[in-house]
Amino acid sequence: MRAVITGGAGFLGSRLARKILERGTLIDADGAQHEVRELVLFDVVPAAGFDDPRVKVVTGDVADPQTVRTLIGSHTQSVFHLAAIVSGQAEAEFDLGMRINFDATRHLLEAMRAMPTPGRLVFTSSLAVFGAAAPGDVPDPVRDDTALTPLSSYGVQKAMGELMVNDYSRKGFVDGRALRLPTITVRPGKPNAAASSFASGIIREPLSGVDAIVPVGPDTRMWILSPKSVIDNLIVGHEVDGSAFGSYRAVSVPGMQVRIGDMAEALARVAGLEVAARIKWQHDPRIDRIVKTWPSNFDCAKGLRLGMKADSNFDDIIRAHIADQR
Amino acid sequence: MRAVITGGAGFLGSRLARKILERGTLIDADGAQHEVRELVLFDVVPAAGFDDPRVKVVTGDVADPQTVRTLIGSHTQSVFHLAAIVSGQAEAEFDLGMRINFDATRHLLEAMRAMPTPGRLVFTSSLAVFGAAAPGDVPDPVRDDTALTPLSSYGVQKAMGELMVNDYSRKGFVDGRALRLPTITVRPGKPNAAASSFASGIIREPLSGVDAIVPVGPDTRMWILSPKSVIDNLIVGHEVDGSAFGSYRAVSVPGMQVRIGDMAEALARVAGLEVAARIKWQHDPRIDRIVKTWPSNFDCAKGLRLGMKADSNFDDIIRAHIADQR
Repeated sequence: MRAVITGGAGFLGSRLARKILERGTLIDADGAQHEVRELVLFDVVPAAGFDDPRVKVVTGDVADPQTVRTLIGSHTQSVFHLAAIVSGQAEAEFDLGMRINFDATRHLLEAMRAMPTPGRLVFTSSLAVFGAAAPGDVPDPVRDDTALTPLSSYGVQKAMGELMVNDYSRKGFVDGRALRLPTITVRPGKPNAAASSFASGIIREPLSGVDAIVPVGPDTRMWILSPKSVIDNLIVGHEVDGSAFGSYRAVSVPGMQVRIGDMAEALARVAGLEVAARIKWQHDPRIDRIVKTWPSNFDCAKGLRLGMKADSNFDDIIRAHIADQR
Repeated sequence: MRAVITGGAGFLGSRLARKILERGTLIDADGAQHEVRELVLFDVVPAAGFDDPRVKVVTGDVADPQTVRTLIGSHTQSVFHLAAIVSGQAEAEFDLGMRINFDATRHLLEAMRAMPTPGRLVFTSSLAVFGAAAPGDVPDPVRDDTALTPLSSYGVQKAMGELMVNDYSRKGFVDGRALRLPTITVRPGKPNAAASSFASGIIREPLSGVDAIVPVGPDTRMWILSPKSVIDNLIVGHEVDGSAFGSYRAVSVPGMQVRIGDMAEALARVAGLEVAARIKWQHDPRIDRIVKTWPSNFDCAKGLRLGMKADSNFDDIIRAHIADQR
């Protein structure tokens, strides 16, 4: 079988690719495991670091319909659609966000619809499809049947993507699944334009001997998941039978609520007080405003029923990050 | 001021136009009533029956971006966006539904965004943004914060429109409002491809001496509103200050729950048993399946707070229809 990862050069895309190559198989439309013979890593820049005959690196613009049609072709069994413009950038560059986060998803759905047999599509949505303008605007915990009231353009674009994935699946055009990801931490590499970027920086930077600027207060709470668990849950979301989703093909991926102050304390426990002292609390009202609209507590009954799993403690997430970096 | 009605040749559009001409004013961005000097009725066919110097009849394709840009121009203060492909047709012709129900809305939002001062936009959404695959899937009553889980392409396209109207409003590109309309009955004229078409036919056809085919059982319940009340509520939705919507610019317009069997009994009361005998119960599983997914009971706290009103009894709706037809 042939699988495609959009955003395949990114951190999650590359990690997912390594996991799929290691597994060697994915479930196909017939419900059975098939050998992954070709794994296409598509991105705007070439995916690097893969020395595997099954990997095909393709570059292009995910928002160009013809590029996407060629990418999918007529025999792609699985697509993991990770390509996206992050929240902070989608808010600053509205048209770019609509193009990459919404139009590209639509082109992908159309390309998959044109295939003789509908392929499986894992669409990465986000907790940002929920938004509370004021405390209490969103139920605590957020349920799978809570209204999508995104308060960022990123969240709106992801919510519209969910609606399309669901309708294309209901019509039998694709076999889609929309997975609402928690904030992922600890991401390796550099800070990005996501409003949640500090949630990785707070651990990553001090461990590299660099100061981390935290733009929100220590009492801010976030709903998080480790890179390892995200990848595991993306695979679960792909492998599970579509009917297990019920009448709606979206699910909040289980996560863990953490207080930012507790993240700092965990870092001190795992890496020492000297390392944790590199965390600098420097309030940024723009970031704080966006982050405050995101709920931090979810009832993930559906995700757990599908077999998805959250992390159990933040200290282990830090330790896993340290191990990954070695 | 200049106001535009898309779908201006349709039943609702024409009726709304007459109401606006009769009022003579609408609220402008400055919060004050201004004289409507130009009322543009835009549709795919020319709006007929208006002999008023303020009315300008324009025809064109609402899904063509250039047409919409020209239509809106640089000095349109108000837009009522009623143009749509109805539910049954959007389900049968997926691409047409996406084009008219979704793309046209986006083009309209973009055209309004390009104006020097953001205009007011009333977007007609629908109760079809909610959908229950099985009884109990949707809370009873449906609240304003109930998740949008549309089970028809029409509902999905309207839900995506709501999300965009909200985001464009949040960004200050337009001053938008999405009004979720109940099923409108009694519509004059001919049956259409809406799955809810029978909800008007059950009254209209017998009164014209024609048999009405009812494709659902008498125990089916629907959430309805009369043409007069829809127009009144569209005006309320336009006139109210945007901030009154709170953080989300969508609202379920108040309606009334009726049992289809009770509609038949009301017809017998108002027009006689002989007329009501023209109702033929002839089950159509395709229509029945769509209608069953629509909730029929709503908690419309927000709409009532905004000043919207439902009808109080169905007999009066029939009487008003009879009076309208004279």
